Amino acid sequence: MAFVYRRRVQFAETDLAGLVHFTCFFRYMEEAEHALWRAAGMSIARAGEITGWPRLAANCDFKAPLRFEDEFEVAVRVANVRARTIQYEFTLTKAETVVAVGTITTAYVSRPPEGPLKALDLPGDVVARLRAAAE
Amino acid sequence: MAFVYRRRVQFAETDLAGLVHFTCFFRYMEEAEHALWRAAGMSIARAGEITGWPRLAANCDFKAPLRFEDEFEVAVRVANVRARTIQYEFTLTKAETVVAVGTITTAYVSRPPEGPLKALDLPGDVVARLRAAAE
Amino acid sequence: MAFVYRRRVQFAETDLAGLVHFTCFFRYMEEAEHALWRAAGMSIARAGEITGWPRLAANCDFKAPLRFEDEFEVAVRVANVRARTIQYEFTLTKAETVVAVGTITTAYVSRPPEGPLKALDLPGDVVARLRAAAE
Amino acid sequence: MAFVYRRRVQFAETDLAGLVHFTCFFRYMEEAEHALWRAAGMSIARAGEITGWPRLAANCDFKAPLRFEDEFEVAVRVANVRARTIQYEFTLTKAETVVAVGTITTAYVSRPPEGPLKALDLPGDVVARLRAAAE
Repeated sequence: MAFVYRRRVQFAETDLAGLVHFTCFFRYMEEAEHALWRAAGMSIARAGEITGWPRLAANCDFKAPLRFEDEFEVAVRVANVRARTIQYEFTLTKAETVVAVGTITTAYVSRPPEGPLKALDLPGDVVARLRAAAE
Repeated sequence: MAFVYRRRVQFAETDLAGLVHFTCFFRYMEEAEHALWRAAGMSIARAGEITGWPRLAANCDFKAPLRFEDEFEVAVRVANVRARTIQYEFTLTKAETVVAVGTITTAYVSRPPEGPLKALDLPGDVVARLRAAAE
Repeated sequence: MAFVYRRRVQFAETDLAGLVHFTCFFRYMEEAEHALWRAAGMSIARAGEITGWPRLAANCDFKAPLRFEDEFEVAVRVANVRARTIQYEFTLTKAETVVAVGTITTAYVSRPPEGPLKALDLPGDVVARLRAAAE
Repeated sequence: MAFVYRRRVQFAETDLAGLVHFTCFFRYMEEAEHALWRAAGMSIARAGEITGWPRLAANCDFKAPLRFEDEFEVAVRVANVRARTIQYEFTLTKAETVVAVGTITTAYVSRPPEGPLKALDLPGDVVARLRAAAE
């Protein structure tokens, strides 16, 4: 039970080794997360909002390289939920090969233009809607 | 009479051809612009501001490639000023070789969280301070 | 007569002003160029090749901002062809609004791992195939 | 005992939340790693090489945000070494505040233009030189 996001490697995402730069894998995971939000009828960042979803932690295990123009999939699911955080799990696959697995843990905060971020409880139905969209 | 910003090429800025991706040249120009603002005792984006400096136009002629770990300079000067726009000129050099020349034209606007950008007259002393810092 | 590439703005492409960073417009143009190549049955960078297509010039006029999750189109066509260069023209539109127009001029070169790039005549049928794919 | 790399946040590294995008923290770690290599009199990627240092794993815990023009430090040290891998540990600090801690694990491989990467034993004195440079 996961939402699947499809993507192709772009030229600017490669580096001089001829492979996708490792930081782009985190971009791909984030794109899948936001596509999941859209599939759930929501947006992670609406104009004028002073709340947001900064990251608490991110990790990735790289299993195989991606190269220019490769087509791949990012499967994302809501793995762990606490009062103020959501952890997503991601699996990136090319054809039948797993190229990476990772997680991103994100908090819900208010972010005034100045001053520190302030953690908030998750909005009521966000998790239920994300889980429904990932089935 | 130009302000000079020094930089080294980072790995993530290269692409599979082994050269700096062309879009990074525009990043380098912007970094030089913002360093000029700091040298003039200003910041192009202060927390909480609802004004900003979006781009109207940008161009670059690429003369020679940059490669990983190359050290280079970006010379920036205020070239053309109108009531509501500033155009900067940039020259990128590695050792004695010009690797690129370009311009960025930027407007001063208010940018409410929602709704369109609105052009504003340039703040009084910005241009004078930038020109002084570039001498 | 242009090839049309469709895209959505990603979160990482925005900046603190809440708009797409101007350098991403050049990425969008390049993505459209490479999609045109694929539509023509070609790839701009095949594994092991020692030729490539570095940029001689790039420019963009920015007409309206793009924001997070905006859907937009990039229309690309082959505008000017010389013995060793191709110039593409791009128009970016969101709904019916033109958000940017630009060009990229690219050369065909050999790029040995060390030593300078060397300009080459365009491969025989590349331009004809690109033009056919853009109709 | 760590090598310290100093950096300032650039505009293009921020996102619409007004903070540095989380993927940039991994770029900062990599920049520190490569600066350590240079301090050790080496380069992680020399022209014409067919070996490289792809990533096996990367993780980051984010403790506090970074914002436009913030000055910060990345302390890097060689943490764990195996026959074919090096793990680096990173601590990012702004003033006296830890903003992030992370690790990157990297393998030494040959990477032919086509075909799979092949793991190699670490070159003889690389680790000793990195450790000496980090003291």
